[in-house]
Amino acid sequence: MPLPGLPFDPLTDGDTLHEECGVFGVTGVAEAANFVALGLHALQHRGQEAGGIVAYDAADGFNSVRRFGYVRDNFTKASLMETLPGSLAIGHVRYSTAGSKGHTALRDVQPFFGEFSMGGCAIAHNGNLTNAAALRRELIEHGSIFQSSSDSECIIHLMARSIQKNLSERIKDALRRVEGAFSVVAMTRTKLIGVRDALGVRPLVLGRIGDKGYVLSSETCGLDIIGAEFVREIEPGEMVVISDGKVESTRPFGNSKGRFCVFEHVYFSRPDSIIGGRSVYETRYQIGRELAAESPVEADLVCPVPDSGTPAAVGYSHASGIPFAFGIVRNQYVGRTFIEPTDQIRNMGVRLKLNVNRALIRGKRVILVDDSVVRGTTSKKIKDMILDAGAAEVHFRIASPPTAWPCFYGVDTPDRDKLLAARMTEDEMRDWIGVDSLRFVSLDGLYRAAGEARGRDAVCPQFCDACFSGEYPVAPSDQLDRGFQMKAAE
Amino acid sequence: MPLPGLPFDPLTDGDTLHEECGVFGVTGVAEAANFVALGLHALQHRGQEAGGIVAYDAADGFNSVRRFGYVRDNFTKASLMETLPGSLAIGHVRYSTAGSKGHTALRDVQPFFGEFSMGGCAIAHNGNLTNAAALRRELIEHGSIFQSSSDSECIIHLMARSIQKNLSERIKDALRRVEGAFSVVAMTRTKLIGVRDALGVRPLVLGRIGDKGYVLSSETCGLDIIGAEFVREIEPGEMVVISDGKVESTRPFGNSKGRFCVFEHVYFSRPDSIIGGRSVYETRYQIGRELAAESPVEADLVCPVPDSGTPAAVGYSHASGIPFAFGIVRNQYVGRTFIEPTDQIRNMGVRLKLNVNRALIRGKRVILVDDSVVRGTTSKKIKDMILDAGAAEVHFRIASPPTAWPCFYGVDTPDRDKLLAARMTEDEMRDWIGVDSLRFVSLDGLYRAAGEARGRDAVCPQFCDACFSGEYPVAPSDQLDRGFQMKAAE
Amino acid sequence: MPLPGLPFDPLTDGDTLHEECGVFGVTGVAEAANFVALGLHALQHRGQEAGGIVAYDAADGFNSVRRFGYVRDNFTKASLMETLPGSLAIGHVRYSTAGSKGHTALRDVQPFFGEFSMGGCAIAHNGNLTNAAALRRELIEHGSIFQSSSDSECIIHLMARSIQKNLSERIKDALRRVEGAFSVVAMTRTKLIGVRDALGVRPLVLGRIGDKGYVLSSETCGLDIIGAEFVREIEPGEMVVISDGKVESTRPFGNSKGRFCVFEHVYFSRPDSIIGGRSVYETRYQIGRELAAESPVEADLVCPVPDSGTPAAVGYSHASGIPFAFGIVRNQYVGRTFIEPTDQIRNMGVRLKLNVNRALIRGKRVILVDDSVVRGTTSKKIKDMILDAGAAEVHFRIASPPTAWPCFYGVDTPDRDKLLAARMTEDEMRDWIGVDSLRFVSLDGLYRAAGEARGRDAVCPQFCDACFSGEYPVAPSDQLDRGFQMKAAE
Amino acid sequence: MPLPGLPFDPLTDGDTLHEECGVFGVTGVAEAANFVALGLHALQHRGQEAGGIVAYDAADGFNSVRRFGYVRDNFTKASLMETLPGSLAIGHVRYSTAGSKGHTALRDVQPFFGEFSMGGCAIAHNGNLTNAAALRRELIEHGSIFQSSSDSECIIHLMARSIQKNLSERIKDALRRVEGAFSVVAMTRTKLIGVRDALGVRPLVLGRIGDKGYVLSSETCGLDIIGAEFVREIEPGEMVVISDGKVESTRPFGNSKGRFCVFEHVYFSRPDSIIGGRSVYETRYQIGRELAAESPVEADLVCPVPDSGTPAAVGYSHASGIPFAFGIVRNQYVGRTFIEPTDQIRNMGVRLKLNVNRALIRGKRVILVDDSVVRGTTSKKIKDMILDAGAAEVHFRIASPPTAWPCFYGVDTPDRDKLLAARMTEDEMRDWIGVDSLRFVSLDGLYRAAGEARGRDAVCPQFCDACFSGEYPVAPSDQLDRGFQMKAAE
Repeated sequence: MPLPGLPFDPLTDGDTLHEECGVFGVTGVAEAANFVALGLHALQHRGQEAGGIVAYDAADGFNSVRRFGYVRDNFTKASLMETLPGSLAIGHVRYSTAGSKGHTALRDVQPFFGEFSMGGCAIAHNGNLTNAAALRRELIEHGSIFQSSSDSECIIHLMARSIQKNLSERIKDALRRVEGAFSVVAMTRTKLIGVRDALGVRPLVLGRIGDKGYVLSSETCGLDIIGAEFVREIEPGEMVVISDGKVESTRPFGNSKGRFCVFEHVYFSRPDSIIGGRSVYETRYQIGRELAAESPVEADLVCPVPDSGTPAAVGYSHASGIPFAFGIVRNQYVGRTFIEPTDQIRNMGVRLKLNVNRALIRGKRVILVDDSVVRGTTSKKIKDMILDAGAAEVHFRIASPPTAWPCFYGVDTPDRDKLLAARMTEDEMRDWIGVDSLRFVSLDGLYRAAGEARGRDAVCPQFCDACFSGEYPVAPSDQLDRGFQMKAAE
Repeated sequence: MPLPGLPFDPLTDGDTLHEECGVFGVTGVAEAANFVALGLHALQHRGQEAGGIVAYDAADGFNSVRRFGYVRDNFTKASLMETLPGSLAIGHVRYSTAGSKGHTALRDVQPFFGEFSMGGCAIAHNGNLTNAAALRRELIEHGSIFQSSSDSECIIHLMARSIQKNLSERIKDALRRVEGAFSVVAMTRTKLIGVRDALGVRPLVLGRIGDKGYVLSSETCGLDIIGAEFVREIEPGEMVVISDGKVESTRPFGNSKGRFCVFEHVYFSRPDSIIGGRSVYETRYQIGRELAAESPVEADLVCPVPDSGTPAAVGYSHASGIPFAFGIVRNQYVGRTFIEPTDQIRNMGVRLKLNVNRALIRGKRVILVDDSVVRGTTSKKIKDMILDAGAAEVHFRIASPPTAWPCFYGVDTPDRDKLLAARMTEDEMRDWIGVDSLRFVSLDGLYRAAGEARGRDAVCPQFCDACFSGEYPVAPSDQLDRGFQMKAAE
Repeated sequence: MPLPGLPFDPLTDGDTLHEECGVFGVTGVAEAANFVALGLHALQHRGQEAGGIVAYDAADGFNSVRRFGYVRDNFTKASLMETLPGSLAIGHVRYSTAGSKGHTALRDVQPFFGEFSMGGCAIAHNGNLTNAAALRRELIEHGSIFQSSSDSECIIHLMARSIQKNLSERIKDALRRVEGAFSVVAMTRTKLIGVRDALGVRPLVLGRIGDKGYVLSSETCGLDIIGAEFVREIEPGEMVVISDGKVESTRPFGNSKGRFCVFEHVYFSRPDSIIGGRSVYETRYQIGRELAAESPVEADLVCPVPDSGTPAAVGYSHASGIPFAFGIVRNQYVGRTFIEPTDQIRNMGVRLKLNVNRALIRGKRVILVDDSVVRGTTSKKIKDMILDAGAAEVHFRIASPPTAWPCFYGVDTPDRDKLLAARMTEDEMRDWIGVDSLRFVSLDGLYRAAGEARGRDAVCPQFCDACFSGEYPVAPSDQLDRGFQMKAAE
Repeated sequence: MPLPGLPFDPLTDGDTLHEECGVFGVTGVAEAANFVALGLHALQHRGQEAGGIVAYDAADGFNSVRRFGYVRDNFTKASLMETLPGSLAIGHVRYSTAGSKGHTALRDVQPFFGEFSMGGCAIAHNGNLTNAAALRRELIEHGSIFQSSSDSECIIHLMARSIQKNLSERIKDALRRVEGAFSVVAMTRTKLIGVRDALGVRPLVLGRIGDKGYVLSSETCGLDIIGAEFVREIEPGEMVVISDGKVESTRPFGNSKGRFCVFEHVYFSRPDSIIGGRSVYETRYQIGRELAAESPVEADLVCPVPDSGTPAAVGYSHASGIPFAFGIVRNQYVGRTFIEPTDQIRNMGVRLKLNVNRALIRGKRVILVDDSVVRGTTSKKIKDMILDAGAAEVHFRIASPPTAWPCFYGVDTPDRDKLLAARMTEDEMRDWIGVDSLRFVSLDGLYRAAGEARGRDAVCPQFCDACFSGEYPVAPSDQLDRGFQMKAAE
C-alpha cells in the first residue's frame, strides 16, 4: 500500500536513471552537523527523497535526525540543528526506491546506527552490495533483527558479529564479507572513517578544513560549499581512519587501479565536480565534440534537453559550428514532487516542466542533445513538443552509448526488458521515437572524452561500463540467483 | 539535548505517577487496525505521548505506523488507516520517559517488529523487565543490534536467538529469560498472542467480537468501545494463542494466584473498567468510605481534586454525611502539552488547568480528596489556591497509603529520595504542605476497599503493593546493580 | 463546498446549543496579548473553533493574529506572541457557524479592524444583531465593501460613515443603529472600550490588574486566570472607556435593569463564574434541588450526563437523598474534532466520548440529569447506552424548561421545527426518547434557582427566556423578514 | 515585528529587482481553477511569495483560496482544488513587499473580492498605481474600510462608490480615477474582464482554449502550459469583456501606441514568452550581440551569471567568437526560502546557490554576462568567487543600461540612493566592484535588440525606460508628495 505523498514526476515518470546516494562526513570542526547539512545540500542531486545526519558530542552522545524531503527544507533550521551538537558528524542523502513500504520507509534512511559493547558506530553507504540478499538470509538465520528493508543494514549486523575489539577493525571484517560497490563514510565516538571497494566504482574524496578538520564527500562540490580544500580521492580498496587531526590509510581491499563508474561522468556527478583530476563539465563538453565528429548532420540549431544535456550541446555546437540555443526552457519552480495532485496536473505531463521557445524553433532543423535514453518515453514527449512548435527536422544526439544493461552497483535502473536499447537497434529506436535521426556517442568516444586518449582498453577497461557493455566487473550474485541472464561470452 | 515540543504540564510538572503503557490486539475482523485504534483511544490514559499499530494482510504483508501524540489525532484519519489493511492487528500506547534522546525517540514507540526466517512477528509490551539491562549487555555482546532505547526490545532479540521453529514457542523461550512484569500482546501472520507474567502484575483481558473475532486489551473499557464482549482475564503466567477463531491456553510461567498491582485500582485504570470482577469506580468509592471511617474530621464540604479524586470524594461524602461539591473546576481545554510556551504560560502554572469555585469555598472548612501524594508540590499549589479563595480550613484525605518506594514494574516513579513519604512522617508532610490535617488511607483499608474483606494478608499479600510497603515480589536486579537499597528485613 | 477538516462531533452531531463568542480585553500591563491569550483560554467554552487577538504598540502599531483551533494550541507559542507587542490588546473566541464558506472562513474570525482617518480601531463582539441583514444591504448600497460573512462587521462600516471626530463617539453612533444583543470590547491606540446593549443579554465584567491595569471579560473566570480582581459588571446600556488608568462610564443606551440571558446560568457560563453576585455552580445545584422537589421519582442512583449535568445532579441527590454516582464516564482524550475520520470512527458515535460504568448501573433504577434537550437525539443515544448496560429503569430530569424557540441573541440554535419541544408535549418527548419518565424544571423553578425567590415576574420578566417562553424582548426583524412566526399573543 | 519564516535569499539579499505580480484568468472550461493554477505556475517567476485563486460556480457561488508559497505546493492538491469549482476563475501571484506587517500579510494576497448589490466581483492587478496613497486617504475619509495594505484595494472601493448599474462599467469608472500602470484581470458571475492602462506598461495577452473558452495571461508562456492558442495582446488602453464565448473590446483609456516596459525584455518575462511578436530569448540574445559590438574585450571564455544572463552570454559568444562556457553552476535545489536558518546557513551566502567550475576557470580571462546591476553587492560576491577560483581577468558585461532610477510602475526597486548607478560613473562602479572592466549595453543598443532598428526615438520613446533614463511617462504623484526628486530638465 503506497503511502500518500509519494512523488509524482511529471516529466520522466520513471524514464530516468537515479544515483542512489550521496555521503558526507566531517570531523574537527565546531557544529559539525551544520557542515554536513551544507555538504549534503551540495550532493542533493545524488538523492532527493530523504536525508539523515548523525552527530557525536562528548556530553550529549550520539544524536540523529532522519527526514524525508530536501536537505534545505529540513537541515537548515536552527531548532533542528541544535539537536545535533558535536564536532564529528556524518550524513547521507538517498533516493527512496519504490519497494519501500509503509512501515519501513523512514527506517531505511541512513546513516544506520549500531550500539556495540565498545561504543556506537554510524554508517552511511553509497553503492550496492551484490550479495546482500544472501547475507541477509544468513544473518537472520543466526539471530539478527533487521530494522530496515535496506541491504546496507547488513554491514552493521556483520560488524556486530565480528570478534574484533576495535570498531574500525570490525568495519573491515564486515566489508570483507560483502561484494559489489561501496563508498562508505562511518563514525565512532572519536573517528571518521572512509572506505571504497576494491574497484572504486563510486566516488569518495578527502578534504581539509580549518587547522585540523577533515572532510569526506562523494564529490568535490561538497568540499567547495564549505570552503574545504581538496586533498585527494580515496583510492579503490583504501580505508582511511581520521582521528585527532591525523589520517591513517590502509588498503584492506587490494591495490588495483579500479574501475570507476563512467556514468558518473555522463550524468550523475555535478558538472562543477572534479573526478580523477578532470572537470566533469569538461568531459561532457568533449562528449559533445566527439558526437559532432562521429555523427554530424546539417542543421540550424543545437539545443540541449535541459538541464543535463547542456555541456554536451555546447561542445557539439563548437565542434560543428552550428549555433547553440536554448530551444527548450525549464520551469525553475517545478520540484520533483506533487503531493496528491489533481488529474489535470497528472495529465499535464511534460508541460509542467518544459516549454518550447516557439519563436526560435519554428521552421528550424534542430539538433537535440540529451544525456541518455532509458525507456525512451521522455524522448518521445520532447520530440512531440518540438514538432508541435513547428520544427522542420529533429535530430537526437545522445551523450552516452545505448544503455542496454541494468546497473547493480548503486544506480536505480529499470529491468533489462524495459530498456529501449536492450530491445531495439539504433535505427529501430529512431523510428520508435519518431525523429529524423538518432545517434549515440560510441564507447570509445566516451572514453576519449573522459580522458583516455586511446579509447577503451578492450582487455582491461579503465571504467565500469556494464550498463553499456554488459560486462560486469563483479558478478551480481543475488541477481543471478533470481535468474538474471549475463551476456553470453562471444 | 531535548527535542523541541516536549510536553510541559502546567499543573503536575513531574509530580505524578505514570502508567507506562497500554496494549491492544484484535483478530478475525475486517479492518482490524481501525478496531485497534479505537481500543487504544479507550486506553489513552495509560500512555499519552505516542502510539503505534502493526497490521497484517495476506496481500500486503506487515504494515506499521508509529506516531507521537494522541490516538485521536493520528489513527482516526482515513488516509492513514488505509495503509494498515488486514484482519489481524495489534497496538500500543506509551508514556515517553524523559531519557529518550533525539535519535531514538520514534524508534522507541512500540509495537516492535522482527523479521525471522519463519516470518514476521510484532510485539507490544506493558510492564517493565527488571533484568533488561543485564540482558541487553549480554545480547549486544553476542551481536544483537538494538534499534531503540527501550528495554522491551530485548524480547525480540531473545526470540531471534531461540532455536524453536515456531514463533509462539520462541516467544515463550524469550519470556522465560526475562524477569519482572509483563503483559504482552503479539502477532504473527496468523496468530494473535497474549501473555501475562507469573505474578500478573499488569492487567490483560480477553474479549469476543462478532462471530469469530477475538480481542486482547489492557482493560475492559477497551472492549466496551468496540462493542466486544468480555470473556475473562488472562491468568497470571498464562499464554493464549488465538488462531482461526480458536483460543489455545497454556501456562508456561507457573500457576500462582498472582499479585496484581493495587495502584491500578487507586489511579491507573479507568473508573469504568472492571478488574477481578469488580468495578474500579466502586473500589475508589469504597476507599472514600474507608477514609471517612478511619480519618473523620468536622467540615462543611467534601471536594475532589479533579479528576481522579472524584469517586473517593463521593464515598467520603456519603459515609460522613458532609456535602459533596465541586470546589475546584478543571478547564477542559487544557491538554498536557504546550509547545514552546511563553514565559507567562510557564509561570501561570496550576491556574491554566484549575480554578477555584470561589463563591462556594469562601469561609468554608473544606476536605480535599486526592488520589495520592508523590513529591507533594501539587498538593501545595492546590492548598494555596483554596486558601487564597478564602477557605477557613483545608483537610487533605488521600485515597492511597503513603507512596514511599519506587515502582520497578512498569510505572514511572521519581527516585526514592524525591518521594515525600520516603522522607517525612505523616505529620511532617502535613506541616510541609501547610494544611490543617492530612490523612492517608491505611493499607488494610485499601485492601478492604478492593474487595479483600480481611485486609492485607501479611504472609501472602494479595496484591503487589511495593510502592507502599517496600516489599518487592520480584527482586529488581538491574536496580540492585545500580545500588538501590531494599527495605531492611525487620 | 465544505472545507476539509471541519469538525465532526461524535456525540452531539448538531444536537446542542452553542454560545457563539467570548470577548476579552486588557490595558495597562506589559505584553497585554499574553493576558488576553490566558483570558480567552478561560473563555474557550464560549467558542472553540477559532480565536483572534489584536494588540497595539506605539512603536509597532496594530498587529493581529487569527487562528482556527484552540487558544492553547496557538496563542501560547512564544514565537507567535512576540508578533503581538504592546500594553493594550483585545481578543475573541468564536464558534464558527456552518454557513462559512471557503473564501470567508478565516476572515470571519474577530476582532475586526478598521483604519480610520483618526487611527485604527479593533472590535470584538459577543451577541447577535437582529437587524444586521438590513443594515448590510443598506451599507453595500452606499459603497461599503464587506470582507467577511459576519454580521458584526456592520459595526465597523457604521463607524466609518459616522461624522464624529472621535472613535469612541463613532462606536456609539454605530451601536445606536444596531438592534439585538451585544457585549462589545473595542480598542483604539489609547483606549480600551466596553459596551453592553440596553438589555444586557450577554455578560461582560470589569476587573483590575496591577497598579493601573484594567480588564474586560465575558465572565469572571477570565479574571481569575490572570489574577485580576473583580470590580463590577458592566451595566445594561453602559459604555466604559478606559484610558490612562481611568474608567469613564456613560449610559448611551438607556438605563434599564436589563434582561440577562437565563441560559447563561443553565449551560453557557462556566460553573466557577459569578453572575449577578451569584455562583453559576450554586444556581445549577439549586436547579437540581428544584427538580427533585418538582419531579420526584423512586430510584437507586442519580447520575449526571457528563459534564454539564453534574452540579444539578448533585443538587438532585442532596434534595432527594438518592445516592449520587458517576454512571457515565467521559473519555477525557476526545476533542470535538476528528479530521478526515474513517467510517468506523463516524459510526462509533457516542462510544468515542462516553462509556457506561456497567458494574454500577446493572439492575439499577437510574435518574439521569442533563442540562437541556435540543433535538433529542443525544438523549436517545444515552438512554440506549444505559439500557444496554442493564439498567432497570431510566428517568431523565432536565435542568432547564423545554427549549421550544430559537435564540436570536447570540446562541446557535437549530430552526424551530428541529427543536423537539416545539413539536411535542413532555409525554410525547418521553415516549420518543423511550425512557420511563422525563421531566423538565419549571420556568418558575429555574428563576428561583437563579435567585429570584418569587419566580418569574409575568409582567416584567427578570431574564431573557425567549428560548423557553417564546417572548422575545427585542423583535428579531431580519428573521421576521425571512418569515419567522412569533408566538401568537394570548 | 516581522513574522517568523520570512524568506532569506542567500545570494541576492535584496540586491535584485522584482516584478511584483502575474495575473491569469480563464472562462468557458470545466474546472477553470485548475487551469488558473497551471497558468500561475507558468507565471511563478513574476511573484514567488504568494498566490490566490477565485472561482465562480452557479451552485456554489464565489470561492477563494489564498496561500503563501509556490503555486505548485498549494494549488496542485486535489483536496484544495475541489473547493474551487466552476468554469470561470482568475488568479494572481505576487511578490510580498517588505512593508507587510503581521496582521495584513495574507489579506494582501490578491485577487481582491467585493460584494456589490449587483453581485460579487474579483480583481487581480499587475502594476502600480501612482496616486494610490491620495486615493486611499480620500476613500477612508468617506467611510471605506481597507482590509489590506495593498494599494490595489482602492480599485474595489472606487467600484463600490460608482453609481453605474453594471460591474464592468464600475470597473471603468474606478480605473479612470487611478494613475499609473495596471494590467487587470477581473471576473463577475458571468464575465471575464481584462484591462490595460493607456501606456500598456505591463503585459497582458488573450488566448483561446477549446471550443468556447478564453484565457487572459500576463505572458504567452501561461497560454502554452495549458495548450491555449495565442490570439493577440490586449492593447494599451483597451478593455475586453468576455462572456458567453464572445469578446467585446472597448478603448476607455485612449488609443495610443503605448510604452511597454523595456525591462520585461531584459529580465522579467520568461525567455520562452513572446512580446510584440518577438521572442524574449531572441531579444536577450541580440543584447549580447550588441554588447559584443559595443564593448569588445580579449578573453578566453564567455560565462553567464546564472540563470538570467545566459541568452545574452550566448549572443556575446557568437558575435565575438569567444567560446561560451558554464563557469558558474547553480544548485538547482536552492529555493528562495530558508525558514529559521542557522547562522552557518546565513553566513554561507552565495555558495549555497552557486559554485564555480574551478577546473574550467583557472588561469582564464573570463567575461561574465549578467542582466543588470542594482546595488552591486551580488556582482562583488560573484567576482570574489571567480577570482578565488583562479581566473586571470574578470570582465563584466551587463545586458541592460545602468539602473539609475527607481520604478514606480510595478517593480520593486530600492530607493534611488541605494542604486549603484545613481551614485557612480561606470568607471567608479568598475573600481568598486573590483573587476578588470565593466560595460553596460547602451540604451540605443537595447532598443535595437528589442526590435527598434533605429534605436530609441528621443522624442517619443517606444518603451518605458524610466529606470535607465529617469524619464517617467506618468508623473509619480504619491512619490512627489513624499519628496522624490525628478530628473532635472536639461
